Amino acid sequence: MRLTKAFLPTLKETPAEAQIVSHRLMLRAGLIRQTSAGIYAWLPAGLRVLNNVARIVREEQNRAGAQEILMPTIQSAELWQRSGRYEDYGKEMLRIEDRHGRPMLFGPTNEEMVSDIFRGYVTSYRELPRNLYHVQWKFRDEVRPRFGVMRGREFLMKDAYSFDLTKEGAQHSYRQMFVAYLRTFARMGLKAIPMQADTGPIGGNLSHEFIILAETGESQVFLDRELLDFDPLAQEPDYEGDLSPTVGFWTSRYAATDEKHDETAWGQVPAERQVSARGIEVGHIFYFGTKYSEPMGLRVAGPDGSEVVPEMGSYGIGVSRLVAALIEANHDEAGIKWPDAVAPWRVSILNLKPGDAATDALCDRLHAAMPDQALLDDRPERAGVKFADADLLGCPWQAIIGPRGAASGKVELKRRATGEREEVSLDEALARIQG
Amino acid sequence: MRLTKAFLPTLKETPAEAQIVSHRLMLRAGLIRQTSAGIYAWLPAGLRVLNNVARIVREEQNRAGAQEILMPTIQSAELWQRSGRYEDYGKEMLRIEDRHGRPMLFGPTNEEMVSDIFRGYVTSYRELPRNLYHVQWKFRDEVRPRFGVMRGREFLMKDAYSFDLTKEGAQHSYRQMFVAYLRTFARMGLKAIPMQADTGPIGGNLSHEFIILAETGESQVFLDRELLDFDPLAQEPDYEGDLSPTVGFWTSRYAATDEKHDETAWGQVPAERQVSARGIEVGHIFYFGTKYSEPMGLRVAGPDGSEVVPEMGSYGIGVSRLVAALIEANHDEAGIKWPDAVAPWRVSILNLKPGDAATDALCDRLHAAMPDQALLDDRPERAGVKFADADLLGCPWQAIIGPRGAASGKVELKRRATGEREEVSLDEALARIQG
Repeated sequence: MRLTKAFLPTLKETPAEAQIVSHRLMLRAGLIRQTSAGIYAWLPAGLRVLNNVARIVREEQNRAGAQEILMPTIQSAELWQRSGRYEDYGKEMLRIEDRHGRPMLFGPTNEEMVSDIFRGYVTSYRELPRNLYHVQWKFRDEVRPRFGVMRGREFLMKDAYSFDLTKEGAQHSYRQMFVAYLRTFARMGLKAIPMQADTGPIGGNLSHEFIILAETGESQVFLDRELLDFDPLAQEPDYEGDLSPTVGFWTSRYAATDEKHDETAWGQVPAERQVSARGIEVGHIFYFGTKYSEPMGLRVAGPDGSEVVPEMGSYGIGVSRLVAALIEANHDEAGIKWPDAVAPWRVSILNLKPGDAATDALCDRLHAAMPDQALLDDRPERAGVKFADADLLGCPWQAIIGPRGAASGKVELKRRATGEREEVSLDEALARIQG
Repeated sequence: MRLTKAFLPTLKETPAEAQIVSHRLMLRAGLIRQTSAGIYAWLPAGLRVLNNVARIVREEQNRAGAQEILMPTIQSAELWQRSGRYEDYGKEMLRIEDRHGRPMLFGPTNEEMVSDIFRGYVTSYRELPRNLYHVQWKFRDEVRPRFGVMRGREFLMKDAYSFDLTKEGAQHSYRQMFVAYLRTFARMGLKAIPMQADTGPIGGNLSHEFIILAETGESQVFLDRELLDFDPLAQEPDYEGDLSPTVGFWTSRYAATDEKHDETAWGQVPAERQVSARGIEVGHIFYFGTKYSEPMGLRVAGPDGSEVVPEMGSYGIGVSRLVAALIEANHDEAGIKWPDAVAPWRVSILNLKPGDAATDALCDRLHAAMPDQALLDDRPERAGVKFADADLLGCPWQAIIGPRGAASGKVELKRRATGEREEVSLDEALARIQG
């Protein structure tokens, strides 16, 4: 993509309404634009990051055996009356009347709907277990939306729903998602720590929040340092096998948010392993038995012919929130430092002298070698403007090309995360960037 | 994907409410499920087709130089009051009040919002032309939703918006989308004919509907046979060059819907070239000058420093509707016949004797060779059930494997569209399927 043809607006001023760094940087780098309070449009660079995040989420859901569907945004109120949650949800639920006066709502979550869909087809234990997920826009009518997409009203969420014949099966499904979440966040370069959580309006008996660590995080968390040393990507999980050892490792070490913090238990963690840090919630998983399957009338014939009410769990990841959380965890004064896996482009090519034939040619060769992963700054702007915009947008690599380097076929390659620079040939640059 | 683990429910009965063939087949094949009147959930097989359709639409938008963004579903009513369309839209617009009593709506289209976003950044002629598109769910509160996703209330649409400095520029942008649309539908195996159209609630001076031909189409159309012989994919378009010859070819031959049909002009088409057929609208493009940019306050500095109000056009494709239209154009008594480019899987593998070691092994080998593009029917069902379900779901190839073939390493390969069958080796089967 060439900047002279792109729609990649950056702002020089820091927008006054933005209170946290991710919100400021997303507005300044032209990733999003607010269209109403707590509602945002995603501009091309922001959408590319959002799509990368969603792709990784999907790949790990699929790997764990979940199947993707897509439920609509608008739901009938009647579904929620059946589960009893229609009143519970209060004013955060966006309630709507259609032209015939029928009560509808913009879905904040989908336990009722997915149970109703499942009930329409599944009649036998042979069709269990199943885990269905979707990635869809939700609405939560926050009284005071703020912090950009970190706490927006319209937000993109991945929500999965598992259906099992037995409690043991449901716990296995829960562990599958537990492990899939660890992998998902690790692939984005994040340290995510599962912490026991309250179940809130979803309900249920067992629940973990996944908290990523970021210096500018929203809340205080406490954890055992051993958890930081575990690499969820070190080995490929066997999702059909016993996942208890992995889950057990995580749940046997101390990790708690401020609200659940227990000074007595904390005191038993050796002092040198006590880590207190800031965190951001990016995922939440629930096991809630038959809380929804029962009222929604879900029944299957068991192996012995008797009726069984399936056991359920639900599993959410805040996809649009993750984009902001990634920035909270990866930025400096100058702007964003995208991890490779989610960056909008792998490289920003800075043409320091558009119009100079050799410089243009070298820039074009690099751009042509990876047209979908390179952003070419070919604007007639000063070098300083280009450096600042490239640091702000935060692609992992910057290829800086001017007449001097072009004369000898050299590219100055800068790693955004560390600031390291080196002069390399075009082929070396490509090899490094494509990693 | 293995059917014993998949969520791919089929229905034996034809649902009574479905009046048209695509609606019946989408319900029976388990592509969609109605969740409220005119609102559908997409089940795994349907979502795969929807994603394939959307991917082709995106690829051709990108090729033509349009850039993807993503605007939210919920809009502020204030935007629409500024353009004067808030009242015009009547009861088809889903109006919403948020918790603070602010009037909002579920966007049926985005001319106002995209103009407002553009206005926030673009100040100079140097930043034109631009074409921004998104693929997002829209809502149109039809009084009597019917025909499944062909005329649903919540539907997925690709809408693009072009911004140009001059009328001539805007007409070039219009021609770019005209050509991109021809290619988009052709890649899906559809014959799409552009026909001059009324502009309706979008307004403007110039407009074409893209109508695909299908025996079971919703409306009568009349066209010159020469249009059927043109292959939009025969050559790569030069989107920067002059597209008038291509557009001129299409607009100089007779093509009209029932409403615009002109018996006098029709009489001048040689009788042997007169084709009257059934059609389905799947796209609509508009050039409307400054109808939105003017009230939305869009202004850029022109080359001479004077203020210019950009010229706009908008360009829609009904992505979810296309899935139904594809079925209207590609089906028989037994079910769907997906064109290769949009099929949920390229091949259905029919294991005629699950549990027979040689049969299972051959099925598994084929499945493992293309795990993402093969659907393996490993259910303990009669062959007849498997044949019927495979024909219903309509993957382009069926690989039928039983003990007799497995003994000699042979696969019976059936082409769904033509019914042709042949016995081939596994390698030949793979080569044919992967085309």
